[in-house]
Amino acid sequence: MSRIAVIAGDGIGQEVIAEAQKVLAVALPGYESTEYDLGARLYNRTGEVLPDSVLSELDEHDGILLGAIGDPSVPPGVLERGLLLKLRFEFDQYVNLRPSRLYPGATSPLADVKPGDIDFVVVREGTEGLYTGAGGNLHTGSPAEIATEESLNTRYGTERVIRDAFERARRRRGHLTLVHKTNVLVHAGGLWKRAFDDVAAEYQDVTTEYQHVDAAAMFLVNRPHTFDVIVTDNLFGDILTDIAAAVTGGIGLAATGSINPDHTHPSTFEPVHGSAPDIAGQGIADPVAAISSTALLLEHLGRADAAVAVSAAVERELASRDSGTQIRTGEVGDRVAADVAGQLS
Amino acid sequence: MSRIAVIAGDGIGQEVIAEAQKVLAVALPGYESTEYDLGARLYNRTGEVLPDSVLSELDEHDGILLGAIGDPSVPPGVLERGLLLKLRFEFDQYVNLRPSRLYPGATSPLADVKPGDIDFVVVREGTEGLYTGAGGNLHTGSPAEIATEESLNTRYGTERVIRDAFERARRRRGHLTLVHKTNVLVHAGGLWKRAFDDVAAEYQDVTTEYQHVDAAAMFLVNRPHTFDVIVTDNLFGDILTDIAAAVTGGIGLAATGSINPDHTHPSTFEPVHGSAPDIAGQGIADPVAAISSTALLLEHLGRADAAVAVSAAVERELASRDSGTQIRTGEVGDRVAADVAGQLS
Ligand SMILES: CC(C)[C@H](C(=O)O)[C@@H](O)C(=O)O
Ligand SMILES: CC(C)[C@H](C(=O)O)[C@@H](O)C(=O)O
Repeated sequence: MSRIAVIAGDGIGQEVIAEAQKVLAVALPGYESTEYDLGARLYNRTGEVLPDSVLSELDEHDGILLGAIGDPSVPPGVLERGLLLKLRFEFDQYVNLRPSRLYPGATSPLADVKPGDIDFVVVREGTEGLYTGAGGNLHTGSPAEIATEESLNTRYGTERVIRDAFERARRRRGHLTLVHKTNVLVHAGGLWKRAFDDVAAEYQDVTTEYQHVDAAAMFLVNRPHTFDVIVTDNLFGDILTDIAAAVTGGIGLAATGSINPDHTHPSTFEPVHGSAPDIAGQGIADPVAAISSTALLLEHLGRADAAVAVSAAVERELASRDSGTQIRTGEVGDRVAADVAGQLS
Repeated sequence: MSRIAVIAGDGIGQEVIAEAQKVLAVALPGYESTEYDLGARLYNRTGEVLPDSVLSELDEHDGILLGAIGDPSVPPGVLERGLLLKLRFEFDQYVNLRPSRLYPGATSPLADVKPGDIDFVVVREGTEGLYTGAGGNLHTGSPAEIATEESLNTRYGTERVIRDAFERARRRRGHLTLVHKTNVLVHAGGLWKRAFDDVAAEYQDVTTEYQHVDAAAMFLVNRPHTFDVIVTDNLFGDILTDIAAAVTGGIGLAATGSINPDHTHPSTFEPVHGSAPDIAGQGIADPVAAISSTALLLEHLGRADAAVAVSAAVERELASRDSGTQIRTGEVGDRVAADVAGQLS
């Protein structure tokens, strides 16, 4: 039996996760869930973000389903670093996965693209680079202040995520783009390029390409259909995935997985959107991204059939929508769950 | 008399700079120019990119007009670091300026935008951050390899570029957006935020906003009209300016200045596009970006009237184009120069 830890979190996180669980109930019948009350409420009550005891408990699960964290009452960065990044580092979630598709019914800000035109995956490194926290300040607040940030990169860390990306490319259209900034960041860029070229030699069936991050950012806007799989470092991935979300119709529909492909610790799956305190509690949040994150979870658990069923149901849900009609959170979950049930019965 | 150093460079650099000089001849009558043969040819002949003697000579000029550098025969990064970045650092060009406008006649990949809707400026820091080259590799090429890149930031360096951005915002629509990643890059982000808030107190007439770089990248795609001036660090600026170029119809039209606002050394002005060896020598390269870079040069030299005339002529040139017609490089320069001459006579 799969054991899923559920961190609904703040704001609309609560509402959308309830719908994701409706879908999971039919896609992964009998799964056991444990709810963890983390986020702004816990922090404001106790000053804690992710107590060690909770971290150990989470580690007993097969996967983590997360809604959204963040509230204006909490200083920016505290929950992000203390919860999201902490999970990535503690649970060695080195593959940060972001599928980007333009769904039927979704509205891209781009002209001349239609559903199906955009379909790529970003594989972002999740445990190295500029995200380690290395660096410091001197003479803080004075005119003499200096600040450093250090990007730390290992062959071990780059090779494993590159290998994962090649595997994904092989299961897709067989094209992998490495994105870095080798012409300026020569040290880290050199390491990434060497690791990439070495692994590429083992995947002769996958065609490869290199792009500087600035060019890739531009191409995501003016020719997104040319991408299949992108592999890149932690910070570049952070930026590129948000551009990807934008061109596929907004962050409201995107889901992401922070994945430990070796299953030595649980992986986290979540919608990309935030807690949206402005619309929380009204039952109008769109749970589609949260539901899509269950598809990524199912895939990771080896339930490819169920994952495909959820994705297909999400696609039908989006295609069936009238642009004028107000979303009712609960109805979306009911519809998608019924669709999935029909497919799997 | 203004003394302009001209580095036409490689590929179409030669062709587009010839047109820019036609325009400059009428916009800045009697200017003296010195041509410097730098780029792939010099490198392939001598192994040198920017000899010290040339650097000293360049330093005697009031401005540098650059076409494009780069050729497949030169290893990637060599000319970029040895010429472009060297000029930025040696000449303390701390303001990297990139105006982004959607011109009439230009085609944005975005739906639902029309000329005039997009009009903002990115002020990118040019002498600090991850561009200093600090960092290194250990056990290179082995499974034990590690690589670091260090972002170096000073209060001195951030404050001066932030101040420049506030000045520009004051001369425009009075809104300035700071872009960084303070929730993850806490050290550099903290420094940038402190410097920004301190300078903001002196510019009560400018409204301010902060965005994380990932959010800003997305907003540049799905609501670019909300930006007026953006100030950001060197690497974020590199990425955001290319997104800006994409949404305003491609890098082919964008111009940039690497500016030393204190005039202690010359500033460099150039089109954003590369040397495009594939179309070089055919007389079909669009010189509009190179011509626009003369407008930035004129502005920097205090010739605001001439700068406005060049921009207006470029705008008319783009508006008058038939999308089907092949550009003839030389004709574009003639038309724009004649237009500028008419305005200034
Ligand atoms: C919240 C933040 C720390 C996080 C990141 O920068 O990785 C987010 O932007 C993301 O992409 O998951
Ligand atoms: C060529 C390269 C070194 C340069 C940079 O990264 O700054 C370019 O992309 C730019 O934006 O001027």
